[in-house]
Amino acid sequence: MKLKRQKPKEKFSYDPQKVLKKLEDLAWKILEEAKSGKNPYFDVPTRGLNNVYFDEESRLIRLGDRLSRRYFLNVAHARKFMQTLILMAYIKRLVSEGKHASLREAYYANKHTVPGTRENTFEDQSESDPIIEDLERMLGVLREEMHITADRRGYIYGDIVIKDGEDEFNASKLGTGGWAVPGTVEHIQFPEINVDYVLVVETAAMADRLIEEKYPKRENCLIVATQGQASRGVRRLIHRLHYEEGLPIIVFTDGDPYGWYIYSTIKRGSINLAYLSEKLATPDAKFVGMTMDDIKEYNLENVTEKLKGIPPDKKGGPTGDYKRLIEELNYPWFQDKEWQRQLKLALKWGVRIEQQALANKSLEFVAKEYLPEKIREGKLLP
Amino acid sequence: MKLKRQKPKEKFSYDPQKVLKKLEDLAWKILEEAKSGKNPYFDVPTRGLNNVYFDEESRLIRLGDRLSRRYFLNVAHARKFMQTLILMAYIKRLVSEGKHASLREAYYANKHTVPGTRENTFEDQSESDPIIEDLERMLGVLREEMHITADRRGYIYGDIVIKDGEDEFNASKLGTGGWAVPGTVEHIQFPEINVDYVLVVETAAMADRLIEEKYPKRENCLIVATQGQASRGVRRLIHRLHYEEGLPIIVFTDGDPYGWYIYSTIKRGSINLAYLSEKLATPDAKFVGMTMDDIKEYNLENVTEKLKGIPPDKKGGPTGDYKRLIEELNYPWFQDKEWQRQLKLALKWGVRIEQQALANKSLEFVAKEYLPEKIREGKLLP
Repeated sequence: MKLKRQKPKEKFSYDPQKVLKKLEDLAWKILEEAKSGKNPYFDVPTRGLNNVYFDEESRLIRLGDRLSRRYFLNVAHARKFMQTLILMAYIKRLVSEGKHASLREAYYANKHTVPGTRENTFEDQSESDPIIEDLERMLGVLREEMHITADRRGYIYGDIVIKDGEDEFNASKLGTGGWAVPGTVEHIQFPEINVDYVLVVETAAMADRLIEEKYPKRENCLIVATQGQASRGVRRLIHRLHYEEGLPIIVFTDGDPYGWYIYSTIKRGSINLAYLSEKLATPDAKFVGMTMDDIKEYNLENVTEKLKGIPPDKKGGPTGDYKRLIEELNYPWFQDKEWQRQLKLALKWGVRIEQQALANKSLEFVAKEYLPEKIREGKLLP
Repeated sequence: MKLKRQKPKEKFSYDPQKVLKKLEDLAWKILEEAKSGKNPYFDVPTRGLNNVYFDEESRLIRLGDRLSRRYFLNVAHARKFMQTLILMAYIKRLVSEGKHASLREAYYANKHTVPGTRENTFEDQSESDPIIEDLERMLGVLREEMHITADRRGYIYGDIVIKDGEDEFNASKLGTGGWAVPGTVEHIQFPEINVDYVLVVETAAMADRLIEEKYPKRENCLIVATQGQASRGVRRLIHRLHYEEGLPIIVFTDGDPYGWYIYSTIKRGSINLAYLSEKLATPDAKFVGMTMDDIKEYNLENVTEKLKGIPPDKKGGPTGDYKRLIEELNYPWFQDKEWQRQLKLALKWGVRIEQQALANKSLEFVAKEYLPEKIREGKLLP
């Protein structure tokens, strides 16, 4: 199998005016209702597991269509109603002025005592974060498009030209460091792409190994290091590189329930952010390793580790890795035969295998044999 | 106070030959002892609190001169003796070949069954990590100089030219992302420096705020985002920028015991890595905020948070923030009058204040008033 850049599937264009329009339309609706003596309300898609499902058609974890209605003239709703309007006004200002704020800044900026009362608008960030998520769901707009930035984590390395504002640079000419992915990637463009695919790597240490071995150059790929669970910025970047730039996505994580979950989040979306799967997930992504089969295939028995936690057949079990494995066995998006096989093998053997365990062969092994061989022969999991 | 680049104090040059020489000298000593029928040994500086002290002269946390002797022909020492030799051989290979390995790779690469026995060289990474630390102490050489890379975290942004291998680029021309600091910065050079000082920032969100407000450009400084506790790479980078490039270092963290500890690690070194203080710490660093005094000075009473944990006068206390505060009050390197004042105020008021709480004033406030004012007027803590 030779990986090649494909024809792009869509072209994303971030338009702040559209976001402003949506905010204003909603605000006008509220204002009109108030003026005409009605009880103003918002319709907010319900959060939580019971409004989340796996959509076989799009192969994504998605949000259902249950709504809850939030009224202004309702003692139980009034506080959240006020908070929603405060944050809408704040976001409007951010987007109009071209400024960005973190979730925490958005909280602090809008925390104040309501004049004439002893009531604070927000007592804690745990009050403002969910309102911002509600707005994402209500407006169908990413938080990042509303200029609320997510935590940043992760970096990229490889032969593509990135345009960020007035700056343009090649991400393979930044030494061993690579480019730190910012919290918001909506505004980033890729004027030149000279790679065939994207290899997403869980650990920084492994990404650095591959960079040292010149893997990106030899295999003509881009490395994205997630440094653990992929941040929103990184997931969005992967999504855009696939859909807008046509790049195949290959994911490389540890062979344990946590690593596999990182993969599934990139591919299917997550339960918490089900309403964003269409913008953050990449269902065409494929998985190269580590798998349970690798242990036998490459004689790695000596460098496996025991699963953490208590097995299901022991008192107090299942906990830890075992619990997570059993959850994954039951998720609708892990029902492929091949994944069921890996998950069951892990349970049966009671072991996990790390990316870096491949160093037991030699430092070069992962870059010169393991990855090129598995990718060339198409030994990838769906 | 106008911050300006000063005359460099030293010039660091990383010489792999020196590291190889030290390894070989030690290995020859062992070999000679074995050949002449003596019992070969290593002298390892003792680890732990009782061999750590605060050196008033260098203003650093330092390692004392206690040694423990590790013999080959001693049942209690033989395993560690073997492990030390295995890792010395491995490091020699890495440095000779110009390759780098992570701690985890070093563990996996050297884990195998000793021929003719059922004994593994290493059972767990918790066996190999301390040996590598022992080698750092014994040889007086950084792990990074031995090509064992540390975890990477943090990024930099500002008008300096970085040379990393064959690549040369300006760290203010990388869009909003900035340059991801690699695990090892020994090989990095700075052919051009156009900034007056370095502002070290605890949170990525605050660093991004300052970048958006064009603070680095307006104030002519470099931003280093530590993203929590500073990684070894970032600490080493700060040290080198100060000593080799003459840049003053200003640190900006949350106003809480964790933020202040981040500062003290950058300035004084840490207890765990006391033997590396001279290479990682920067005793000339100064602290700009947040302080308890800032709360009154800038009317931030409304956006403080309660300290976490149980106060010392309550049952079960002190825990959490309170415990950490009391530890800091007692550390010899927190005995400056001004620091004692801040720590006591925090205890008295029972509050902490975050960097991002400044957003309560306005998003621009931190970049246009708070920082420039405090730095101009020299309102810095030692």
